[in-house]
Amino acid sequence: MEELKSVTKLIESFSRLPGVGHKSAEKMAYSVLEMADEDVEMFSEALIELKRNVHHCPICGAYTEDDVCEICSDENRDKTKIIVVSYPKDVASFERLGVYNGRYHVLGGVLSAVNGVGINDLNIDGLEKRIKEDNVQEIIIATNPTTEGETTALYLARILEKDNINVTRLAYGLPMGGHLEYADSLTLSKALEGRKKI
Amino acid sequence: MEELKSVTKLIESFSRLPGVGHKSAEKMAYSVLEMADEDVEMFSEALIELKRNVHHCPICGAYTEDDVCEICSDENRDKTKIIVVSYPKDVASFERLGVYNGRYHVLGGVLSAVNGVGINDLNIDGLEKRIKEDNVQEIIIATNPTTEGETTALYLARILEKDNINVTRLAYGLPMGGHLEYADSLTLSKALEGRKKI
Repeated sequence: MEELKSVTKLIESFSRLPGVGHKSAEKMAYSVLEMADEDVEMFSEALIELKRNVHHCPICGAYTEDDVCEICSDENRDKTKIIVVSYPKDVASFERLGVYNGRYHVLGGVLSAVNGVGINDLNIDGLEKRIKEDNVQEIIIATNPTTEGETTALYLARILEKDNINVTRLAYGLPMGGHLEYADSLTLSKALEGRKKI
Repeated sequence: MEELKSVTKLIESFSRLPGVGHKSAEKMAYSVLEMADEDVEMFSEALIELKRNVHHCPICGAYTEDDVCEICSDENRDKTKIIVVSYPKDVASFERLGVYNGRYHVLGGVLSAVNGVGINDLNIDGLEKRIKEDNVQEIIIATNPTTEGETTALYLARILEKDNINVTRLAYGLPMGGHLEYADSLTLSKALEGRKKI
């Protein structure tokens, strides 16, 4: 007996998720068979709705369900201070701290020779445009503390030098080789407090 | 900034899967945002199709996409020999061995005082009906080697005693406390070979 066609298809989809191997995907697919119909429908719709409703904010590049994201459209947030992150989800890590009142800019990745990501693949033009238009005073670079994140930070620091702004980098409270999204709030707070000029 | 509504919904659905905590569910939801539209649509449809197409075989209780499952409708499979398993997915574990030419019966669980599963919650009547109608000679009980699986096996052995059939239990090659679906083929083959009368 072969695996049923419908089961095989779902296993394939689950296998595409990060950290899910074939055995886990199989377990997940069979667990769906045991779920209530309503829950599976909700699951199925949630997938489609996510892709339909969520897009990048045209200003900062973060994920949003509105025309412009909540932060970019909030006039109480300080326009002259920008935290630059690599990925949209990194914005949520900072917002959870509740201590930052500036804005964000999402690069959409890191410079990487291995993965063929160059300066034109990152949203750097958008950042420079905002710096000019919003009279930005401080840029806090918060790329991941990895080799590629460092390279990206140094590149940004160099090209922003000419503008008269304070460019800082998160302090190392973060362990090298780690990823922002796994940092606990305390570590991330410390890193934000101890940011240094580069 | 709160997590976006569409993201929260999908995280909830992913969290319902076995072995998926909140952090993993979050990672999965964000990875869906990076997937191609076609892949997400395929994923969404696979969920719905699974529930629409797959149901229990009315004879043995295994999962099937047909009216009657492949094994129950195959006249070359020996009707007089039945492996009794707790869960539909356990059938696939035996079929993978390619050494068994009999049929299966899925109980739909194990007797469990803790989870409130009694004899009327398991498909035992169906088994007794098949034993009579198909002149079954041998029943191989293959519930999981856990306390509840054992209890179920002993109960079955007791009620099948009166019929003149050979009731066996898988040999212990399986480690106690484990689950059938994780057994490698060799271990499972040994267990099948060494089955003993109970």
